[in-house]
Amino acid sequence: MKEILCSIITIGDELLIGQTIDTNSAWIAQQLNAIGIQVIRRVAVGDVKDAIIQALDEEKKRVDIVILTGGLGPTSDDITKPLLCEYFNGTLVENEEVLKHVMSIFAKRNRPILASNVRQAMLPNTCQILFNEVGTAPGMLFEQDGKIFISLPGVPFEMQYIISTHVLSLLKEKFVAPNIIHRTLVTSGEGESFIANRLTDFEKELPKHIKLAYLPKLSIVKLRLTAINVDPNEIDVYFNSLKDILANILVADTDIELEQVLAQILTDHKKTMSIAESCTGGYVASIMTSMKGSSAYFKGGIVPYAIESKIAVLGIHADTIDSHTAVSEQTVQEMAEQCRLKFKSDYAVSISGYLEKNDSQNEVWIAVASAKEIKTKKIIVPYDREKNRILASNTALNLLRLFIVEEGR
Amino acid sequence: MKEILCSIITIGDELLIGQTIDTNSAWIAQQLNAIGIQVIRRVAVGDVKDAIIQALDEEKKRVDIVILTGGLGPTSDDITKPLLCEYFNGTLVENEEVLKHVMSIFAKRNRPILASNVRQAMLPNTCQILFNEVGTAPGMLFEQDGKIFISLPGVPFEMQYIISTHVLSLLKEKFVAPNIIHRTLVTSGEGESFIANRLTDFEKELPKHIKLAYLPKLSIVKLRLTAINVDPNEIDVYFNSLKDILANILVADTDIELEQVLAQILTDHKKTMSIAESCTGGYVASIMTSMKGSSAYFKGGIVPYAIESKIAVLGIHADTIDSHTAVSEQTVQEMAEQCRLKFKSDYAVSISGYLEKNDSQNEVWIAVASAKEIKTKKIIVPYDREKNRILASNTALNLLRLFIVEEGR
Repeated sequence: MKEILCSIITIGDELLIGQTIDTNSAWIAQQLNAIGIQVIRRVAVGDVKDAIIQALDEEKKRVDIVILTGGLGPTSDDITKPLLCEYFNGTLVENEEVLKHVMSIFAKRNRPILASNVRQAMLPNTCQILFNEVGTAPGMLFEQDGKIFISLPGVPFEMQYIISTHVLSLLKEKFVAPNIIHRTLVTSGEGESFIANRLTDFEKELPKHIKLAYLPKLSIVKLRLTAINVDPNEIDVYFNSLKDILANILVADTDIELEQVLAQILTDHKKTMSIAESCTGGYVASIMTSMKGSSAYFKGGIVPYAIESKIAVLGIHADTIDSHTAVSEQTVQEMAEQCRLKFKSDYAVSISGYLEKNDSQNEVWIAVASAKEIKTKKIIVPYDREKNRILASNTALNLLRLFIVEEGR
Repeated sequence: MKEILCSIITIGDELLIGQTIDTNSAWIAQQLNAIGIQVIRRVAVGDVKDAIIQALDEEKKRVDIVILTGGLGPTSDDITKPLLCEYFNGTLVENEEVLKHVMSIFAKRNRPILASNVRQAMLPNTCQILFNEVGTAPGMLFEQDGKIFISLPGVPFEMQYIISTHVLSLLKEKFVAPNIIHRTLVTSGEGESFIANRLTDFEKELPKHIKLAYLPKLSIVKLRLTAINVDPNEIDVYFNSLKDILANILVADTDIELEQVLAQILTDHKKTMSIAESCTGGYVASIMTSMKGSSAYFKGGIVPYAIESKIAVLGIHADTIDSHTAVSEQTVQEMAEQCRLKFKSDYAVSISGYLEKNDSQNEVWIAVASAKEIKTKKIIVPYDREKNRILASNTALNLLRLFIVEEGR
């Protein structure tokens, strides 16, 4: 079966001066991948007519589908629509349905409609309009020489809406795509090269048409097997063998985040958690509440950032801090215990440490507590403030995950 | 003066299936921009030899500098180094200094060194080595036909280290770059198209060689003026006029985040803050503690996620919640007041609301309090959970910023 290939072109000066991080491409790639379409290139260009045309000319030679994002807003740095109209030999024509929709949005917000907003209803007569119910700039689909070109607004949730609602079903109609199979294993506790060393024999035996990739990210290493048009049973044989080899550091056998695994375990066990975090400053709580339905297992948190807040708000004994300092096993033990009692949760995690006091020897203490037991762990975080925070958080979440799993046995 | 142009090529299958978001390119673009080098394209390709070579062939025709990131790790999906060695007619030769460094890293970690790590000291004899003090994979600089090619590891902090320590100074030696001037204005409180409407006359009068861009991001709109090789006084005339027109929504006249502005105001006024946040789940606290030195102004926070935690941990009267619900003006007022008292801070912010209860009519209440006064605000957050959280947080931080500024008058 023929592979269906796609290039993504993202448009915007802000991408090239580094003011904006491109999250759209990754999201689009995930969606296309799931329906068997392979993204083989991503290109970012500025708001420059010639650069956009050159990118279109080049990418269409390589692929079946070109997706463009950005450059469709109401402001004057947006040049994509007139350019595409010309490129695909069209004329801009007012679309009544889009105009009505744009006007209704402004009516709902009780705001006057501007000329630039009205212009958003002017669309090339050579495109299929991809209606944007959640914003003012519609998407456009053009066809040329059997290739598909799709232009979408750069605002992530508008782009995502149009892809989910219109684009995926249209592409499934137009192409019979091969079946791309991924199997992802999530591990925590061992570095990339140590895992690779344990997998030397495994990799030797892996057939050429199944690819293994390592995706390391601060205490988490994901391993991904990929194959196109294979019998799922064949890839599963290798995937199961991978799981066996790495059983001791296995977090999940699907592409999932650590916090999702923990949320699932808490839900399955009908247990609740709370958190007292000092140096991570609310980051762990924000991770655990980023998931829909988190109120089922997350009771709350305290960020006792100042030492006096550890005493006055969380209820740590001043003696403990005086004798052992705020970054100590004794302090995190008391933090976890106080936190669990205050929030009346089944489990509590606590974190206290330094994220950027020293060059590469910052000590972070973590404790996890239930009514029966408290466990502690000290780690050294060697990176910058942001990475150290993520590393400490991941370590704490994994510690709680293991703690609950072991207690449940 | 000749413009110095650069393309960034990022390598890795994980970028094309959407498993990883590319943050490297934005960071690199910022650094190069600051020394007058313009990134005109960014291309992402997979771990596929032909695709990498094709990208190199194409990009080098367009630019003076090609920067490649990724594909240099110890695991076997990394093919960039041998490929570059061949592309630039070299032979892999063991580099003693790099080998020593790799061995010392493993010695320090008290871990055995692996064959794959030793191989990282094998480097093309046609490159200038860019020593990587913070990791095992060094960067490489090649020259061909007056063009520069730089290959860097994909791990962000290693890439950043090599750019900061080696690459920027090397490029400044090799090129006399023109002066790119940006002026960025940060606003909050008005949408992109409304600002654009107020700037119609301004844009008409703006000379062709000064570009204006709109960068909207959930309640914040940044406006950027850009010009190459102009007299700074000329661009400042337009920038000052922009500031005057938008004075009522102006947050900052430099490219800075809202939380940095707030941190600066608190520091300048020698004031402290605390936060009680329910629906935002620790996100605002994590933003305020993401900055170095945050302990000077941030006393701490409470995330009273469950209703019983609002009562038991934060000290809200059960009556208040019974009579007015947890998402109400009365509740956030009491939350802010209790929070300020518990943490003994000069100011407190509180947030309580729904992030994804309804389709597009989620109500969020915010309060800001000092010893003298409490102010509240209700907003409707219309997006998905994540965006609503950021929108509510930004609104709360901006409310506190205005509150402190007004109180200081």
